[in-house]
Amino acid sequence: STSFVMNLFNGQLVPDNVFPFPSVLSEEQTQFLQALVDPCTRFFEEVNDAAENEKLEHVEEATLAGLKEMGAFGLQVPEELGGVGLTNTQYARVVEVVGVHDLGVGISLGAHQSIGFKGILLFGTQRQKEKYLPKLASGSWEAPSSLALPVVGGGSTQGAGLGFTAVPGRDGKREIPGGKGKNPMTLSNGGTAEIFTVFAKTPVKQPTGEVKDKISAFIVERAFGGVTSGPPEKKMGIKCSNTAEVHFDNVKVPAENLLGEHGKGFMVAMNILNNGRFGMASALSGTMRGVIVKAVDHAANRKQFGDTISNYGAIQEKVARMAMLHYVTESMAYVVSANMDMKVPDYKLEAAISKIFASEAAWLVGALPGSLFAGNGRGTSPETGVERVLRDLRIFRIFEGTNDILRLFVALTGIEYAGVQLKNLRATVMNPSGKTEVILKEIGMRAKRKVGIPTGLSLEGVVHPGLDKSAYLVTRAIDLFGEAVESLLLKHGEKVIDQQFHLKRVADAAIDIYAMAVVLSRASRSLSLGHPTAEHEKLLCQTWSHEAFERVRENLRAVGSSAWNQAFADMKQISNAVVQNKGILAAHPLGF
Amino acid sequence: STSFVMNLFNGQLVPDNVFPFPSVLSEEQTQFLQALVDPCTRFFEEVNDAAENEKLEHVEEATLAGLKEMGAFGLQVPEELGGVGLTNTQYARVVEVVGVHDLGVGISLGAHQSIGFKGILLFGTQRQKEKYLPKLASGSWEAPSSLALPVVGGGSTQGAGLGFTAVPGRDGKREIPGGKGKNPMTLSNGGTAEIFTVFAKTPVKQPTGEVKDKISAFIVERAFGGVTSGPPEKKMGIKCSNTAEVHFDNVKVPAENLLGEHGKGFMVAMNILNNGRFGMASALSGTMRGVIVKAVDHAANRKQFGDTISNYGAIQEKVARMAMLHYVTESMAYVVSANMDMKVPDYKLEAAISKIFASEAAWLVGALPGSLFAGNGRGTSPETGVERVLRDLRIFRIFEGTNDILRLFVALTGIEYAGVQLKNLRATVMNPSGKTEVILKEIGMRAKRKVGIPTGLSLEGVVHPGLDKSAYLVTRAIDLFGEAVESLLLKHGEKVIDQQFHLKRVADAAIDIYAMAVVLSRASRSLSLGHPTAEHEKLLCQTWSHEAFERVRENLRAVGSSAWNQAFADMKQISNAVVQNKGILAAHPLGF
Repeated sequence: STSFVMNLFNGQLVPDNVFPFPSVLSEEQTQFLQALVDPCTRFFEEVNDAAENEKLEHVEEATLAGLKEMGAFGLQVPEELGGVGLTNTQYARVVEVVGVHDLGVGISLGAHQSIGFKGILLFGTQRQKEKYLPKLASGSWEAPSSLALPVVGGGSTQGAGLGFTAVPGRDGKREIPGGKGKNPMTLSNGGTAEIFTVFAKTPVKQPTGEVKDKISAFIVERAFGGVTSGPPEKKMGIKCSNTAEVHFDNVKVPAENLLGEHGKGFMVAMNILNNGRFGMASALSGTMRGVIVKAVDHAANRKQFGDTISNYGAIQEKVARMAMLHYVTESMAYVVSANMDMKVPDYKLEAAISKIFASEAAWLVGALPGSLFAGNGRGTSPETGVERVLRDLRIFRIFEGTNDILRLFVALTGIEYAGVQLKNLRATVMNPSGKTEVILKEIGMRAKRKVGIPTGLSLEGVVHPGLDKSAYLVTRAIDLFGEAVESLLLKHGEKVIDQQFHLKRVADAAIDIYAMAVVLSRASRSLSLGHPTAEHEKLLCQTWSHEAFERVRENLRAVGSSAWNQAFADMKQISNAVVQNKGILAAHPLGF
Repeated sequence: STSFVMNLFNGQLVPDNVFPFPSVLSEEQTQFLQALVDPCTRFFEEVNDAAENEKLEHVEEATLAGLKEMGAFGLQVPEELGGVGLTNTQYARVVEVVGVHDLGVGISLGAHQSIGFKGILLFGTQRQKEKYLPKLASGSWEAPSSLALPVVGGGSTQGAGLGFTAVPGRDGKREIPGGKGKNPMTLSNGGTAEIFTVFAKTPVKQPTGEVKDKISAFIVERAFGGVTSGPPEKKMGIKCSNTAEVHFDNVKVPAENLLGEHGKGFMVAMNILNNGRFGMASALSGTMRGVIVKAVDHAANRKQFGDTISNYGAIQEKVARMAMLHYVTESMAYVVSANMDMKVPDYKLEAAISKIFASEAAWLVGALPGSLFAGNGRGTSPETGVERVLRDLRIFRIFEGTNDILRLFVALTGIEYAGVQLKNLRATVMNPSGKTEVILKEIGMRAKRKVGIPTGLSLEGVVHPGLDKSAYLVTRAIDLFGEAVESLLLKHGEKVIDQQFHLKRVADAAIDIYAMAVVLSRASRSLSLGHPTAEHEKLLCQTWSHEAFERVRENLRAVGSSAWNQAFADMKQISNAVVQNKGILAAHPLGF
């Protein structure tokens, strides 16, 4: 794998996908994009009214029509099929504009094309594409579509275990029996969607001749009958987007609506989710950008103790933190989308990390200005617009894979990879014809790590010399990371899967290291090109790296420390007791 | 000072107010309280409807009448003046019940009595008390009162600098000229209040004969004329409580309505705020208790990957964290209220810390279950009731002193105390008649700290032996803290006031150490008494102490580290650049 994050787990620094900061747009693609961003920005400034959409709990009709006209429902559908034909990087830049102004609209559009019909884009036959994509892209199938797989990505096997079984029916059609009121799924755009990607178990003949239930993917039209949906759910945020329960009840699906290969539905689902995640980071970097404008306006104009609050360290730390979180998110967003455009084969961990990071950074940025807005009750009043954004942001850490589950995904996928590498290394060592040099290098590196000798990982020549210090922290962090993962593997073997307290910290460290790498790459490019903001970016990079490295060290120290292992065991026991007691167990200090 | 926190700054362990866990209620007081808590709980379960109050954006009429009947508007007003006559501990326990069910009602009641008329309770003359308290306590002055000092406590001198000047008018009355539309203040209960405590500058003759403008406090009735208020503000949360702008325009205040001494208004205001803060911690510990019940119910019943999610480490860590945050908050709440009932002279830092800690802990606890509720979109839907609570909780970190400002208050007040002690020590050393033993002990302690030798601080005999480890961490943390504060003082002298990056970390460390101490005291009492939940409390205490100590060490390391000092300087520069640029300065990765 050339994945930067995947290789971290093996203690390796593989810079290819991150350094130098990838730049994938041709001159022509850049111009096309620029010509799109300006009217899109104007549209969101002048036509779309986020407060009104929220009040109505749906997108205003005129706005919706405008979005359709702009092609916003088919940004990545090929032009010949009625879409705008954007690359991933171009798509990221456009949804960034949406993210600045209205996350509710962002979700409607994102659920439609980042998930909803992504399966048809990725796995559809030419016939399926021709049949479905033009109408989906134009929005003339009035409602956006949804992915009827709410929880595989959302972190459970419920998608697979939904009880859906598509049995061969009459007329060569397959039936999804479902059952009214049984196994409803709550879906974005669930109440308005015409087209669903449904995953259901089907009996598949194995090469051995045995028949096994496997998941297959199907394109389901509401028009097939048997698809019903509930009323729009009341939500805390993203209120103008539709969320509704969908029921499938004896839906008959024509054979030609199988999506991808028979029995390969799980792979289809995973690909949709991995491929659909990247837009969130750029959308949320847009959101943060917007919040920061409001926050610093306030910081620069509000006076306290006779000085503007922007002159106080407590406020400066907040503003700096907002700027850093934004810088990291934006850098991740465009590295991942570029990697996808570069056809990097493996970017799933990076995409997952960008979703985790962006959703948590945006939540922090949304919450940070609170105290800036303190005076005159503005902290909670809707006028600043920030409170709506904070409510909108709530769901981002939760959906499309909760961040908890994605952390496990990152840690376990990486550790599995490291486990295989470790096993291969062992096999090579045992094999007398093994390449001695390779063996010695690998073993030497691991041995050095064990005793804390620098392993020679270096970004020299790759990174601008002005960022040597941050580059060193990245390589040092990778050394610490490689060693921690190896120790964990040696200690727990395959049972590492049960060590969720450890896995969370491994994932956090991987996230921080990847974050360090992307900003290092970006700031380095700016310095090398002599960008006017390069020195500012250098500050962002070195401050971020300093803090991130401290966290990495603490997280990895915890993984191996006996005091922390005791704390993990204690937390498990505390949790069990509280769950069993159905609430707080400790006696009240007053006794009642 | 016998304040635990104040003495931390001097590197001293003064356990008196914390160890053993204070217990101040007499048998009779306990019975009285118990007789109150039960009907109060029933009232909030059966009569009060938080969702309905929120929808109406005011408390339902019948509920309001019921609250008045229960005496909820005058819980601490003496019985002979129509109140319930509760001690601080009793009050804390009652508002805890309110906090479980409806923070909007909690704010209405809290703004009324914890701030609104607290000044009359604390500083009113017998005549003022007799005139105002009965009607305020019964709620027959229909609206709760507000403190017209939104920002002295909220962290600025705006209260003092409001432009209010009470000039001697005709009839011996004083006039608050104000001016319509000038200097409006946004106040809790501002639209409904009949009685205001107003702070205004008045010319005061100094002992020197010179006349200076000093702040005085006044009891102002809306009926005096000149007091107008705006419409209720739209808010993110606590919607059933009233928040409105209030204008004062040539209000004429009779001379007898001066509250406290002439020119001593600042002291009055500070006392109100210090005295009013303690209820928030118990109310929010109630809120957390309620959230935790919902969270663990979900954790115990939701299945993923074929197992209930409460069996997964990622979820267990969340549940344990919720339980610990609750345990700390509850412990702080009842130590502080007990200290007040014990007439401990100095509890202002402890009260401030309990407000900071409780508001942040509650926000975390409110936000944590999000991912537990993930399945089926429940993360953001209002049905769980948790989303309303999260919105309600937003303001608590911001009002009654933003947590930023309170952190500075804690750090600076403590450091000032340490500075005086240090100066005194120096003076004693220079004075040949100084008590040699005292000097040697003090100097010896400081010298030991410098070279990392244990100074002999100990909680042996005070704490149950089963908690020796946690007790050691508390003493070790105090040693580290004392040394860090001393270094900071020696390095910056009085200019330490400008080192807000450092002060924040000092405050965070003080908060953590105080938190460690209160849970240590509580768990120790439970172990000694053989409480059925003692072993569980031991786990809460030792896990919390372990984590808190790690944070203390990191925060204090940062205060002295050159790498961190570089990071602070860089953050300042980053913030200045972003503020000056009115938003993100770094060039977009795509160039536009």
